[in-house]
Amino acid sequence: MTQPCYALVDWGTTNLRLWLVDADGAVLAERQSAEGMGNLSTDQFAGVLETHLAALGAPADLPVMMAGMVGARTGWVEVPYAVAPADLTTLADSAFDVPQTARPVAILPGVCQTTPLPHDVMRGEETQLAGAVADGLVSAVFCLPGTHSKWAIVEDGRLSRFATVMTGELFSLLSRQSILRLTIDADATTEPGMPEFAEGVRQGLRPGFALSAELFSFRAAALLAGLTPTSAAARLSGMLIGAEIAAMASQIDNNATIYIVGSDRLTALYRAGLSHAGLACEALDGASLVRKGLFAAARLKYGRKN
Amino acid sequence: MTQPCYALVDWGTTNLRLWLVDADGAVLAERQSAEGMGNLSTDQFAGVLETHLAALGAPADLPVMMAGMVGARTGWVEVPYAVAPADLTTLADSAFDVPQTARPVAILPGVCQTTPLPHDVMRGEETQLAGAVADGLVSAVFCLPGTHSKWAIVEDGRLSRFATVMTGELFSLLSRQSILRLTIDADATTEPGMPEFAEGVRQGLRPGFALSAELFSFRAAALLAGLTPTSAAARLSGMLIGAEIAAMASQIDNNATIYIVGSDRLTALYRAGLSHAGLACEALDGASLVRKGLFAAARLKYGRKN
Repeated sequence: MTQPCYALVDWGTTNLRLWLVDADGAVLAERQSAEGMGNLSTDQFAGVLETHLAALGAPADLPVMMAGMVGARTGWVEVPYAVAPADLTTLADSAFDVPQTARPVAILPGVCQTTPLPHDVMRGEETQLAGAVADGLVSAVFCLPGTHSKWAIVEDGRLSRFATVMTGELFSLLSRQSILRLTIDADATTEPGMPEFAEGVRQGLRPGFALSAELFSFRAAALLAGLTPTSAAARLSGMLIGAEIAAMASQIDNNATIYIVGSDRLTALYRAGLSHAGLACEALDGASLVRKGLFAAARLKYGRKN
Repeated sequence: MTQPCYALVDWGTTNLRLWLVDADGAVLAERQSAEGMGNLSTDQFAGVLETHLAALGAPADLPVMMAGMVGARTGWVEVPYAVAPADLTTLADSAFDVPQTARPVAILPGVCQTTPLPHDVMRGEETQLAGAVADGLVSAVFCLPGTHSKWAIVEDGRLSRFATVMTGELFSLLSRQSILRLTIDADATTEPGMPEFAEGVRQGLRPGFALSAELFSFRAAALLAGLTPTSAAARLSGMLIGAEIAAMASQIDNNATIYIVGSDRLTALYRAGLSHAGLACEALDGASLVRKGLFAAARLKYGRKN
């Protein structure tokens, strides 16, 4: 195979994804694993990385560029945050060189926000955004749905402002660990066309929506009106997505196209939710974006090797 | 001792409280226990009740009036709900006679709400409200803070409308089981005078407050600005109480005095929260109210025995 130029690693809380790419960023080989930051102690990261590189036959001096929770306080080494507004084209300038590695290994900084408040942080999403910027999307609104959804405003290649919404984690907590677990099938598959989903979205979008005051009705409707666990899951999912969109819509230009970066399943749900809110959107591929962001950073950091 | 006239039992999810009272409702003896509905299977209730009655030397034919989750689907026997608007002075007419007991044992109905929506249910709180009505408070707004806070509007002795807010459960889920557990001391004691509590209340009261969008800032502020676990607990507590008050204030006459029925600790926090919202309040003693509600029901059901 063509000699790889860099190894790129998206190392999050629950997964790692590694690519060997050539000088143009084309993928030569890749690996995925569930050895996420959350499952590793500090002294395990180096070994895990080298195992995956060896499995792909990577040269001993191949430089590595990484992003994500690997740079968190509880990761391999803590990498100081870049501060928003942050230039996404030069994140590599603040990449942190992991000490005592046999090969060059760098971790990109996450980004923190302190002004304007509220405080917020991201690690990994900034590299997806950098990939979008590298792709030419230099000014846009992004929505990255997930456990902790991120919304970001990028202007002229700079991440100017962002916000985190705990939509996915709330769905999981409420459907698995609250009293609503008796009423909601946490593992049900919600389809964007389900009427209960649409009803939930409309509820979450309503001005004056108050989450804590609208949750117990799921339990009561199950007791009194036969609300099924599958319908309840769809309605809760819609409600939380609607509430997220309502909260974020108040902070963005409502004529802007929102670029969704997420799994196919979440993208379909958010697309439906945004459409209920009258907002335009387009979907981008997250894995491809993070790879592009890492590649751009590797080129800046290590230069064009071959 | 004077011969008791009735045994009164407030039997909730986590506790039971039992009183022997005379013909005027004066307490002759009482017992408390952690043998709540949640810890018992259906066939254990009769034995637990008789054990406590025997420990107090209650006569074998002493009639018993009960209220609370003992009448839930997962309790001793499922007692059908009374339907709101519900007359709180005649709940005893719908009391359910537990079959196959050696003595008369009745359970008061909970109350359900189906119109106007949202669906809601209560079991136990209606008996506290009946006690307030028996005490002469026939028209008032009540706030019963807790795991599932209840707000109720009583008009001329009728429970006309109520709502449940999952404030306590959300605090517990977020501070113990979400990512915020790393940031919030779930067991910290929040005092109503703490500035972080007041700040949280103001945040929750703000128009447009969106819970899911404001939670992650606790984590970020801990990482970036040294927010301590104790301060974070106070702020989250205030935020959830503020959000509850904001949601409920939109549904009540804002000139009404709100009668708080809860523990001393919660009463102090809600009193502070209501004061931030410019709402007047007064505290009532919940244990005394439920006993009065049970006593009024026992008199109606069993007659004045001695």
